[in-house]
Amino acid sequence: MDRRSMIKKGLAAGTAAGAATLAAPAISQNRQQWRMVTTWPKNFPGLGVGAERLAKRITDMSGGRLTIRVFSAGELVPPLQALDAVINGTAEMSHGAAYYWQNKNPGLSFFTGVPYGMTSMELSAWVRILGAQQIWDEIYDQFGVQGFLSGNTGIQTGGWFRNELTGVADIKGLRFRTPGLGGQVWQKLGASVTNLAAGEIFQALQTGTLDAAEFVGPYNDLALGFYQVCKNYYFPSFIEPGLATELVVSKKKFAELPKDLQEIVRIACQAEHDQVLADFTANDPRALETLVQKHGVKIHQFPEDILEAGAKASSEVLEELRSSKDPLAKKTVESYLSALALLRQRTQNMETPYLRAREKYFNPK
Amino acid sequence: MDRRSMIKKGLAAGTAAGAATLAAPAISQNRQQWRMVTTWPKNFPGLGVGAERLAKRITDMSGGRLTIRVFSAGELVPPLQALDAVINGTAEMSHGAAYYWQNKNPGLSFFTGVPYGMTSMELSAWVRILGAQQIWDEIYDQFGVQGFLSGNTGIQTGGWFRNELTGVADIKGLRFRTPGLGGQVWQKLGASVTNLAAGEIFQALQTGTLDAAEFVGPYNDLALGFYQVCKNYYFPSFIEPGLATELVVSKKKFAELPKDLQEIVRIACQAEHDQVLADFTANDPRALETLVQKHGVKIHQFPEDILEAGAKASSEVLEELRSSKDPLAKKTVESYLSALALLRQRTQNMETPYLRAREKYFNPK
Repeated sequence: MDRRSMIKKGLAAGTAAGAATLAAPAISQNRQQWRMVTTWPKNFPGLGVGAERLAKRITDMSGGRLTIRVFSAGELVPPLQALDAVINGTAEMSHGAAYYWQNKNPGLSFFTGVPYGMTSMELSAWVRILGAQQIWDEIYDQFGVQGFLSGNTGIQTGGWFRNELTGVADIKGLRFRTPGLGGQVWQKLGASVTNLAAGEIFQALQTGTLDAAEFVGPYNDLALGFYQVCKNYYFPSFIEPGLATELVVSKKKFAELPKDLQEIVRIACQAEHDQVLADFTANDPRALETLVQKHGVKIHQFPEDILEAGAKASSEVLEELRSSKDPLAKKTVESYLSALALLRQRTQNMETPYLRAREKYFNPK
Repeated sequence: MDRRSMIKKGLAAGTAAGAATLAAPAISQNRQQWRMVTTWPKNFPGLGVGAERLAKRITDMSGGRLTIRVFSAGELVPPLQALDAVINGTAEMSHGAAYYWQNKNPGLSFFTGVPYGMTSMELSAWVRILGAQQIWDEIYDQFGVQGFLSGNTGIQTGGWFRNELTGVADIKGLRFRTPGLGGQVWQKLGASVTNLAAGEIFQALQTGTLDAAEFVGPYNDLALGFYQVCKNYYFPSFIEPGLATELVVSKKKFAELPKDLQEIVRIACQAEHDQVLADFTANDPRALETLVQKHGVKIHQFPEDILEAGAKASSEVLEELRSSKDPLAKKTVESYLSALALLRQRTQNMETPYLRAREKYFNPK
C-alpha cells in the first residue's frame, strides 16, 4: 500500500468511523461496538486476516453484545499510530506487533520476537507461565493499555537475494531491507540496512535501489512478487524466529466490561495465537512449493559463517538492551534470557533431536 | 490411583452426580449444567489440570449459562468408558485422547499422535487447515459425537531404562511399558511390551517385573518417581512426538446450544490447546533440572541404530493401518501422510536449521 492511497483511505474511513460513533447510542445498553485499529493492510495473509477473524470470534462468542469493527492500516489512523489511537481513545483496541512501539519502551520488542531468540512455543511459555505477562502489563500500565498475544508467524525466512551468498564477506555494503533489531544485526554484519513499507519493497528491488530484502515468509512473500527479481531465497531467519502479534485494549474500557466479556476477549486472543500459527504452518509450505516449482526459486541455507557472525551480533544487540537505563526494559531482557536458558533445554533435548531423526530416517511412501 | 480407590471414588461421585442431575431443573431455563467425564486422574499435571481449566473457561465465558462439572477418571465412569458415557448420554462431554478409542476406528490414533509423525504445530495445521477436522467429524458422526483438539504435550521423552543402551541389540527381550502404536513399534524392535496404568508402573519397575518404561515427559514422570529405580532417561520419544488431547461433545446436545455457546466451547478448546502446550514447554525443563540436579538422572540420546530401526518399524505400522478395510481409517492415513509430506518441508527448511544454528552459535551470558 503506498502512502498516498493510505491517506485517501484514512480520510474515507474517518468519515465512516464518525458515522459509527454517532450510531453507537442506538445500540441497546447491553450491546456495544468497539473499534479495532490494525497495523495491517486489508486482507493481509495470516496477520491481517487473523485480526479480522479475532474480531468475528469475539463478536460471535458474545452473541453480539461486544461487536468489534476492524479498521485496516490507514482506514482510521495510519498503521504506526494504532497504539496511540487506543491510548487517546480513538479506538478501544489495536492489533499489531509490540516491537512497533519500542520507542515507547525498548522492552516491548521481546513480546514480538528478537534475533536468535525464542520460538513461538517458547515465547508463549515465557509469557503465559514464566511471568512475562506481568512484566508486559507493567510496561503497558504506564500508557493505560494491556496487551495479549494474538498470533505468531512461526520461524521466518532469511530473505531474497539477487546473488548467491558465499560467506559473510558478501554482506559488506549489501543494500538490504530489514527493520528493527534484526536490522541492527545485519548492520553489524556489514549490510547497508533500510526499512521500507511492504508495498515499496518490490519496486526498490526492481529498480536496483535494493540488493536484497526480507519480509515474512513464503505465504506473505509470494503475494508481493519478490521472486520476479530475486531467485535466491535464504533460510532460516536467524533474526526473526517468529513474529508474535498482540491485541492491545484500553485498560479502562476493559475494566468496564462484565467478567464474561473480559474472558471472551482474553481467550479469543489465545485461540487466535494457535490459529495464526496453524495458518502459517500449513500455508508457508504450500506457497514454497509454488515458488520453487512454478517460479524457479532456489532455496539455500545461509553459509555457516553468516549464522555464526549473526549470533555474535545478536548477543551484542541484546546486551545493549540489557544495559538500558529503563528499569522495565532491563527487567524484560533479564527475564527473557533466563527463561530462554531454561526453555532451550527442552528444545535441545527433545525437539531438535526428534526433527533430525525424522528427517534422516523416516520417509514413508 | 489404584483400582480400589478408583471404584470407591466412582461410587461416591455417582451419588453426587445423581444429586446434580436432580438439581438441574432448579437452574433457570437460560442456564444449564453439563458433565465432563475425563480419562485423567484428579490433578494430573498438564492434562487433567487442562480439562479442569477448560471447564472453568467455558463456564466463565458463558457467564454461568453453561456450567461444566468435571469428573476425574473413575468418579462417574471408568477412564476408558469416557467416550461411551457421551455416546449413551451419561455425560455431555468427555476429555481424553482419541487414540484410546482406536478399537472404534483405527483412524482415531492420528488425531492424538503416531510414531515418527507430526509435531504439535503440524498436527494443528493438518486438523485446522488441511481438512482433517472434516475426516475426524466423519468418523465421530457414526457415534453421534464431535471432537475438538484441546491440548498437546509436545514432543515426549523416550523412556526410563535401568541400564544404558548401546544399540538395537539391547532391546531384545527388554520388558518395556509403552501403550498403543508406539508399543507395536517397540515390539518390532524386539522388546517385550506391556501396558500398565500410570499408578502401576513404579512398582513394576521396583520389583523387576519391568526393565524399562515410558510415560509422558519430565513434568509427569517426576511426580511418579521412576528416577528412584531407573537413572537412564532417553530422549526423544520417536514414538510420541506429542499427544493431542480432545474434547468430545454429544452432537445432539451441542446442536441444541445457542450459537454463542457453541462458539465458546469450540474456541475455549483451541485456547486450551495453546495453554497446555505452554504448560509443558515451561514445566518439562523445570522438572528436568530437578531430575538431573537433585536426583542424579542421566540424560541420553537414543543410539542411531535404534532411531533408524524405529523409523522402519513406524513406517510398517502406518502401512498396516493404510491397508485397513475401514474406508475412513484409510482416508485418515492417506490425508495424514500427504499433509506430513507438505508440512515437513517448512519444518526441515526453517525449524530444524534455526534450532541447530541457535544451539551451536548463540550463547548469551
